[in-house]
Amino acid sequence: MALIVHKYGGTSMGSTERIRSVAQRVAKWARAGHQMVVVPSAMSGETNRLLGLAKELMPNASTPEALRELDAVAATGEQVSVGLLALALQAQGVPAVSYGGWQVAIETDSAFTKARISRIDDVKVRADLAAGKVVIITGFQGIDADGNVTTLGRGGSDTSAVAVAAALKADECLIYTDVDGVYTTDPRIVPEARRLSTISFEEMLEMASLGSKVLQIRSVEFAGKYRVPLRVLSSFTPWDIAIEEEAASGTLITFEEDEKMEKAVVAGIAFNRDEAKISVIGVPDRPGIAFSILGPVAEANIDIDVIIQNVSHDGRTDFSFTVPRNDYARTMDVLRTKVQPVIGAADLRGDAKICKVSIVGIGMRSHVGVASKMFRTLSEEGINIQMITTSEIKTSVVLDEKYMELAVRALHKAFGLDQEAVAAA
Amino acid sequence: MALIVHKYGGTSMGSTERIRSVAQRVAKWARAGHQMVVVPSAMSGETNRLLGLAKELMPNASTPEALRELDAVAATGEQVSVGLLALALQAQGVPAVSYGGWQVAIETDSAFTKARISRIDDVKVRADLAAGKVVIITGFQGIDADGNVTTLGRGGSDTSAVAVAAALKADECLIYTDVDGVYTTDPRIVPEARRLSTISFEEMLEMASLGSKVLQIRSVEFAGKYRVPLRVLSSFTPWDIAIEEEAASGTLITFEEDEKMEKAVVAGIAFNRDEAKISVIGVPDRPGIAFSILGPVAEANIDIDVIIQNVSHDGRTDFSFTVPRNDYARTMDVLRTKVQPVIGAADLRGDAKICKVSIVGIGMRSHVGVASKMFRTLSEEGINIQMITTSEIKTSVVLDEKYMELAVRALHKAFGLDQEAVAAA
Repeated sequence: MALIVHKYGGTSMGSTERIRSVAQRVAKWARAGHQMVVVPSAMSGETNRLLGLAKELMPNASTPEALRELDAVAATGEQVSVGLLALALQAQGVPAVSYGGWQVAIETDSAFTKARISRIDDVKVRADLAAGKVVIITGFQGIDADGNVTTLGRGGSDTSAVAVAAALKADECLIYTDVDGVYTTDPRIVPEARRLSTISFEEMLEMASLGSKVLQIRSVEFAGKYRVPLRVLSSFTPWDIAIEEEAASGTLITFEEDEKMEKAVVAGIAFNRDEAKISVIGVPDRPGIAFSILGPVAEANIDIDVIIQNVSHDGRTDFSFTVPRNDYARTMDVLRTKVQPVIGAADLRGDAKICKVSIVGIGMRSHVGVASKMFRTLSEEGINIQMITTSEIKTSVVLDEKYMELAVRALHKAFGLDQEAVAAA
Repeated sequence: MALIVHKYGGTSMGSTERIRSVAQRVAKWARAGHQMVVVPSAMSGETNRLLGLAKELMPNASTPEALRELDAVAATGEQVSVGLLALALQAQGVPAVSYGGWQVAIETDSAFTKARISRIDDVKVRADLAAGKVVIITGFQGIDADGNVTTLGRGGSDTSAVAVAAALKADECLIYTDVDGVYTTDPRIVPEARRLSTISFEEMLEMASLGSKVLQIRSVEFAGKYRVPLRVLSSFTPWDIAIEEEAASGTLITFEEDEKMEKAVVAGIAFNRDEAKISVIGVPDRPGIAFSILGPVAEANIDIDVIIQNVSHDGRTDFSFTVPRNDYARTMDVLRTKVQPVIGAADLRGDAKICKVSIVGIGMRSHVGVASKMFRTLSEEGINIQMITTSEIKTSVVLDEKYMELAVRALHKAFGLDQEAVAAA
């Protein structure tokens, strides 16, 4: 008998028929003797519907008072889900009880619409589990110290599930989603992409932050901090497949560095084309210049990703960075009006048609030559590299976006990801 | 400056446009210097939608565990309303804050789907009012001693508003609804029906329990118990009519027996055709016989309204009562299978095509001959009276339903309700 947390996304909860199927799956686990906690999202489309209503009444909610109301409204989506799922389980003869985040309580700070969980009270949940009940808890939300409802932001239900699993010291947290695990890269780009049976926490973190949409990055951070064994698996398998088969499916995110001989150097290839590249040319090379450039951009609430400043010559240097593609025009405007006149840069150049491709792998730590193999592979395909940035377990390059698919496919093959049959880490 | 509670029904909250209009009306009152508390219902159709989803997953929820989940789901309708109304007020520059029943807290017993309010904590609300905020509180719901969400049953938002007004000792509780007040009778039946500018609490209670759908009866009982000045008025007047005009519109439910010379004997005519009549004929007249007949009916959860047992002759009597028309077939079945064989009644007779017409008026207490005037009027119209039942301030008759409109019109005229220009009580 184990204590298991299941998380189901909005698509899995999208209709009463699907909720019934989730209930059947959970019932199977409960009948197998496991203590079950379930964290479902709102029914698909519901959160958008609620926020749409709110937006009609206040198009640009930004004050804490307005964000508080936004959260109170948005949180009702999951409150409906948990009640319906509890009814569906009871209808199948499985004792079940639902709780809103405030009832558990899942305590958070007061950063409405993007709150962070500070503490989870597990007393009620443990008592219900001991009494043989399935406990269903709203994802995405909590309560602050003043008794206000808060939400954790988009994708917050993943984080809720992991946080609940951490608080209860669950044996495993299963994230049911619309893909059947974490892949070496996106199978829509590379048909040979393989599902990883395991991936290390650090690799998952890089994959998540680099555009692999399987898990919300905060949930991975949370899992890492509290060492919650996390499994990503498909909610589209029939609910009545053998529990052993289901328990071994998907991708397990691990924390132990195992000693497998055939450890793959690179676990996967991540990519995105949501960014734009900007270069400030002929910048005087003096202390404080990076802040002079990026300060006004950050002040305009624009996220900055890759930042590159190369060595200078003749007292001038070029300074490049990437921003979300949606913010490209606005960033150029900020630079033109607030930065260029102040620092006296020679020129501004931008390109929205770029992509970022990254190789990720914990094996990179101990293997030299991984980055150079990446560069050689791209070179052999005639792909020019515009920017390079590295961390301990990843190397990212910025390319013309037209080369993205080609680069991903070539790298996937070069690092043997379409052949390797063992786990990545 | 006064402390005012407004209650708005689901139709008034039916769209973001209507919510904006409610916000404008409330803002008008707030800007006039009043401390405002607002209790809105769920957006129209929302509670039914939520209960419909629940019903798909559990067609016959009846256990406390299932009813608890039903309440958790149903309560979200009002939680959305209050948040949206708060945003609409803030968008108009009026400070506003919303609370769910559990946040206030509105404490109830644990009778899920039909809970009763036991206590309201007014600390938060008073602090917000003192800080100049409009406070918006969910109707229809509360929290029990174990921290579970409860609902008060259909129409419960009226009761919530009155209970909040009682707890805050509000100067007046205004119930905005889709009619512009309480009428001497239904204007759809009698075009000459007049709106009463005031009605006594006792009369309102009889009118509400006799089928006048303006106010939920429990809210009237609550208002009576705590002497909350209650006004029923239209939510369809333009939001920007002069506040003095609005404050004097509708019907005020009063508690003082005023000394008006021209007090009307009868305040109004109530009626319904939702009942069926059943007679058990040739019942042995012995102690316990009423219980033998009605016990099995009550056990089947069938409400019994009028009960009549006349004097017996030859040791036998006839026993008659009315039940909701929907339960007619089921009641006959219970009597046939569980009552008739046991008590040995000669016959069962039933009639679903009846109506009940009642005259209501506090003045009946001191005026003899009111009932006989009622009977004479019906007799002059050739209407046969099937059953009669009376209380201190009302007389009800059961008639063939085809006479309902005729009876109501004749009585309305006979008691001068279409001419009387003064308040009823």
